Amino acid sequence: MTSEHKQPSRSAPEALAALAARFGDRYTTSPAVRERHGQDESWHLPAPPDAVVYPESTDDVAVIARVCAEHKTPMIPFGVGTSLEGHVAALQGGVCIDLGRMNNVLEINAEDMDARVQAGVTRKQLNAYIKDTGLFFPVDPGADATLGGMTATRASGTTAVRYGTMCDNVLGLTAVLADGRIIRTGTRARKSSTGYDLTRLFVGSEGTLGVITEVAVRLHGVPQAVSAAVCNFPSLQDAVDTVISTIQSGVPVARIELLDEVQVRGVNNYSKTDYALAPTLFFEFHGTEAGVAEQAQLVGQLARDNGAAGFRWATLPEERSKLWEARHNAYYGGLSLRPGARGYVTDVCVPISRLAECVVATKRDIEASGLIAPIVGHVGDGNFHLVILVDPENQDEVRQAAALNERVVHRALEAGGTCSGEHGVGYGKLQFLETEHGEALSLMRTIKQALDPHNLMNPGKIVSPLASA
Amino acid sequence: MTSEHKQPSRSAPEALAALAARFGDRYTTSPAVRERHGQDESWHLPAPPDAVVYPESTDDVAVIARVCAEHKTPMIPFGVGTSLEGHVAALQGGVCIDLGRMNNVLEINAEDMDARVQAGVTRKQLNAYIKDTGLFFPVDPGADATLGGMTATRASGTTAVRYGTMCDNVLGLTAVLADGRIIRTGTRARKSSTGYDLTRLFVGSEGTLGVITEVAVRLHGVPQAVSAAVCNFPSLQDAVDTVISTIQSGVPVARIELLDEVQVRGVNNYSKTDYALAPTLFFEFHGTEAGVAEQAQLVGQLARDNGAAGFRWATLPEERSKLWEARHNAYYGGLSLRPGARGYVTDVCVPISRLAECVVATKRDIEASGLIAPIVGHVGDGNFHLVILVDPENQDEVRQAAALNERVVHRALEAGGTCSGEHGVGYGKLQFLETEHGEALSLMRTIKQALDPHNLMNPGKIVSPLASA
Repeated sequence: MTSEHKQPSRSAPEALAALAARFGDRYTTSPAVRERHGQDESWHLPAPPDAVVYPESTDDVAVIARVCAEHKTPMIPFGVGTSLEGHVAALQGGVCIDLGRMNNVLEINAEDMDARVQAGVTRKQLNAYIKDTGLFFPVDPGADATLGGMTATRASGTTAVRYGTMCDNVLGLTAVLADGRIIRTGTRARKSSTGYDLTRLFVGSEGTLGVITEVAVRLHGVPQAVSAAVCNFPSLQDAVDTVISTIQSGVPVARIELLDEVQVRGVNNYSKTDYALAPTLFFEFHGTEAGVAEQAQLVGQLARDNGAAGFRWATLPEERSKLWEARHNAYYGGLSLRPGARGYVTDVCVPISRLAECVVATKRDIEASGLIAPIVGHVGDGNFHLVILVDPENQDEVRQAAALNERVVHRALEAGGTCSGEHGVGYGKLQFLETEHGEALSLMRTIKQALDPHNLMNPGKIVSPLASA
Repeated sequence: MTSEHKQPSRSAPEALAALAARFGDRYTTSPAVRERHGQDESWHLPAPPDAVVYPESTDDVAVIARVCAEHKTPMIPFGVGTSLEGHVAALQGGVCIDLGRMNNVLEINAEDMDARVQAGVTRKQLNAYIKDTGLFFPVDPGADATLGGMTATRASGTTAVRYGTMCDNVLGLTAVLADGRIIRTGTRARKSSTGYDLTRLFVGSEGTLGVITEVAVRLHGVPQAVSAAVCNFPSLQDAVDTVISTIQSGVPVARIELLDEVQVRGVNNYSKTDYALAPTLFFEFHGTEAGVAEQAQLVGQLARDNGAAGFRWATLPEERSKLWEARHNAYYGGLSLRPGARGYVTDVCVPISRLAECVVATKRDIEASGLIAPIVGHVGDGNFHLVILVDPENQDEVRQAAALNERVVHRALEAGGTCSGEHGVGYGKLQFLETEHGEALSLMRTIKQALDPHNLMNPGKIVSPLASA
């Protein structure tokens, strides 16, 4: 796992020369920079691009696209590189388009509760920018990803159960197509029924249809009251049953997160907390004072009906921050359970009615494998993650981890679910798309072919011919 | 307006003969049946198809598509014909695919709060079917449309402000493509980030990319408590200001509908009500007992701050039914103001911050035109409608109505809005798409061309070459 992807580069020297001339010191072929841009936070093999360019405007991106199109050179958009399925790997070489300098907030329309930002603005940057407006941007995948990257990967995270994913929160976008044309999708109206939904075609397209350069997002009112709680359960089944009852009772819970006892151990290690080593739920409630009290009381009762113990309430902002910081660092907590190991990360999402059986069976699979693999999940959506801890030098372990991943994915697909609730396809999950989508995958290929006939936009992702190999 | 569209039919006799042989008495060329299928509820010129076929399964639809594809014959899907922009008109002849016999509810997954239905199931039929589950399907465009038709037109209606449009409530679908291939989009998981969002590409595609034969929809819990209210205002501006404050305060109002005093007069005429002849808001609140009381109190205060008077509360189900029946019959109420007139219906949607100015300016335009045109709207979304009452024989009036429509649309577009919030494009709003979408319209054409290279699926709608003519 320390080597690199070996596929011949399709970069044309003429394209690189033209970009070098045009962008000057905003163009680099430095090995260290290229290396950093060919690797995301996943365990997948890196693949550095041949060059990295730093556009500062949509027009800059259009120039890059026209040059690359002319010389049939691949283009890979890059935000901050926090993706988890190898999305940024330059599998066929090409030019990395780093959108990090396109980090201006363009418009805040507080009255309409929306914002328009350049693609390189991160979610924390946006929230800091609007902190005095009484509004916030809720989608929270943990990492401080760019809004362009979150749009491209259809990100979600802990609050999606209440506020939706990027699919629900992106109102429109600007994108540069493979031939350099610039399109702007959506309007500032809250709904429209005029024409194909190009916004949502680009949400989740992972750079394979064009480069997203600006995003208009929905903002939400900061809730009057917030409270959070942690409690633990006698078994994983009891915890998941509590989640299911909560969702089915219609409580508009803002976050509901599951950690198995292995993950709790990792969290305690890393974040110096002292949660009981048992399957645990983290909750957060948003609303009016009365509404939050009503939600908390109802969910507390549902949890106790399922044997919950050790309730800890966090109503002060600093207590809540500590709690969610611990949750957000769950990945590093997991890694701390086996120093030196890498995390083979995967996520699936299933219908809520099948969640208990899928989580419990996955737990059995992990135990049978002998691997350490904490389970953590945005279970209100039916979404859970595994961080399989492997020694990257041990090929046997890597194979075992891949086999475990496959079992988890196939179980999710058989339950009517999806091979990724939020991490996306990149090139890590290509192999499962045929099973998940069937004939619909051929339609995705048709669309890709129509929009990017020379396969220049992030080639090898989502709809690569590899998908059916 | 009593004549028909005159464009040569592209139907091949071989296709009609093959379908007649294959479908027997589920195929007809009866003039009366064809006429009924070439006209929706709009004022647009009808255009009857050359034949009507009644499939009973997705496979039947695939057979029809293969026959039509082989002989390059247009196909127009048909639900119950309640569209409002000429969506079902067979502008180039062809075969109408009436999905009315595909009216089986296929699955109700109460635990997962979703359902799967054949495209011909109507929203009232689905709600009757699930009435004992504690769940309901909220999208309510007024008409008892089919779920296939509502999906194809991205319908919304009175409750979209709380529960979203079809964009938010369709989880997946089955569609037959122009060449007869069958695809199934989406999974039963609540979210997924694996591949292009084909579900939302088909939502709002108006039959131009394929025939939707099955739809999976999200269901919602029947609220514990519901209350409704009506009140009137000194001016349109005051009413709209109340809407804006309500939305901005984050109250999760379930419906918030505006009627101007002309529309109120029509409602009183038609529904035998006695609402004061003034700009009026109809509200509905959903939630827990406490939540509804809290919402109603807050909104009541906002309304009174804007001069509201004559509050009438409807907490009993029969009072609420009466109120919403009156609202749903607003169209017929409007028509009653000028017996013999036809309603030239249009809708636009604007950012909420621009709503007051757009509605007030529209009112001035109507007064200047001398036409009678009630205003009614789902104003919580920034969406409002005009029913311009015209004598169809009076060409001068028809022209004036068209000019008024254009002014309303261009004002909405200048305000950052859309030329249709919920009625769609059909062929009635083709002329505005270039202005609204710019270069993005060319991308819609590319997609249409890729999926339907012979322009067989509902030709002349959304992305017709006419759009830029």
